[in-house]
Amino acid sequence: MKYYGFWRSLAACRVRIALALKGVKAEEIPVNLMQGEQLKPEYRAVNAQGVVPTLMLDDGSALFESMAIIEYLDETHPQPPLMPKDAKGRARVRGLAQIVACDGHPLVVPRIRNYLEKDLAIDEATRTRWCQHWIMEALKAVDAHLSKEKETGRFCHGDAPTLADICVATQVFGARFYNCDTGPVPAVMRVFGECMKLEAFERSHPLKQPGAPKELKH
Amino acid sequence: MKYYGFWRSLAACRVRIALALKGVKAEEIPVNLMQGEQLKPEYRAVNAQGVVPTLMLDDGSALFESMAIIEYLDETHPQPPLMPKDAKGRARVRGLAQIVACDGHPLVVPRIRNYLEKDLAIDEATRTRWCQHWIMEALKAVDAHLSKEKETGRFCHGDAPTLADICVATQVFGARFYNCDTGPVPAVMRVFGECMKLEAFERSHPLKQPGAPKELKH
Repeated sequence: MKYYGFWRSLAACRVRIALALKGVKAEEIPVNLMQGEQLKPEYRAVNAQGVVPTLMLDDGSALFESMAIIEYLDETHPQPPLMPKDAKGRARVRGLAQIVACDGHPLVVPRIRNYLEKDLAIDEATRTRWCQHWIMEALKAVDAHLSKEKETGRFCHGDAPTLADICVATQVFGARFYNCDTGPVPAVMRVFGECMKLEAFERSHPLKQPGAPKELKH
Repeated sequence: MKYYGFWRSLAACRVRIALALKGVKAEEIPVNLMQGEQLKPEYRAVNAQGVVPTLMLDDGSALFESMAIIEYLDETHPQPPLMPKDAKGRARVRGLAQIVACDGHPLVVPRIRNYLEKDLAIDEATRTRWCQHWIMEALKAVDAHLSKEKETGRFCHGDAPTLADICVATQVFGARFYNCDTGPVPAVMRVFGECMKLEAFERSHPLKQPGAPKELKH
């Protein structure tokens, strides 16, 4: 098993964390998003959409979309579980993950930033405000759930990390890249602190990957 | 069981189709997105993010995010199944659904169109091009998978409708609302045609819901 990723990609980072939590070894093959490698025909043959991550199984199957990949890993490597045992719990964990992975993160990925810059001629300061706004809108929605719902524990759902924590923690990485004020999301930041006590999260951080700069310029 | 939706919401439409495929009766409570009802405190108490759909269970639990809701319905009402039996198949179905529900649809929802208009002062024609572009980018990515992968059958994955078909069909509804040229996505349109032969899809169409106009103005 190997996967296509990139140090800076928060979606690839989700898969990296899941693999680390499961203790599954998989080589990361870098696709340089800053040089547009994801749009070249060689990579489009692997991932038609031209995005990372892609998980390559040993039989040649290419799995796409980070949440789908993580649920696959959870189904095929059940320990430790990344999803609750009950249907309502799974719905809550998937819902929290999807607030980030559907309604937050896709708004700030390279293709959107490029469209804002090149097609809409939006200046850099305004693009940064766009990214900050949508990153925080998702985290505020997650925070509202975490702060009022009894299912919240040490982590987003109970006392062990789930798919929701993986998505929320990577979104906080993004919030920090963009210097967002995380003051309005204390419940998120408490859970983030718990995640970062775990080696699987800590060592999967974008800036700790090969090829990453010491500090991020966006 | 009841759910909060709106005739025009494509995410609520996904839940409506899933309920119809399952033969589960659930009252739809309208939240008028065009009058901003989703942002009022009464609805924020139900759905912190201020979006539809929300599925209200009889025990008072509020489930959020359409894909999470549909997987919950599939787990609690297993017939007919909306997910494949094998882990790789589930990953493909979730991946196709997520291309639409993560990377396509969230870019054209009301809060984004409002931000483009009010915060970025983007004119209507340019906003329409934005919506057309991102709706079709998602459908082209789905089309590339459907046209080259052996798992594609009468529907996106095999010969029965799944979560993927629900997401893809509603995205085609969106493409038609915005007068997109669907010529470049023939495999998507073939599957869409199969979906629309099923009463569950056909009668769930946004323009067939109470309160909907006869034609759409966006």
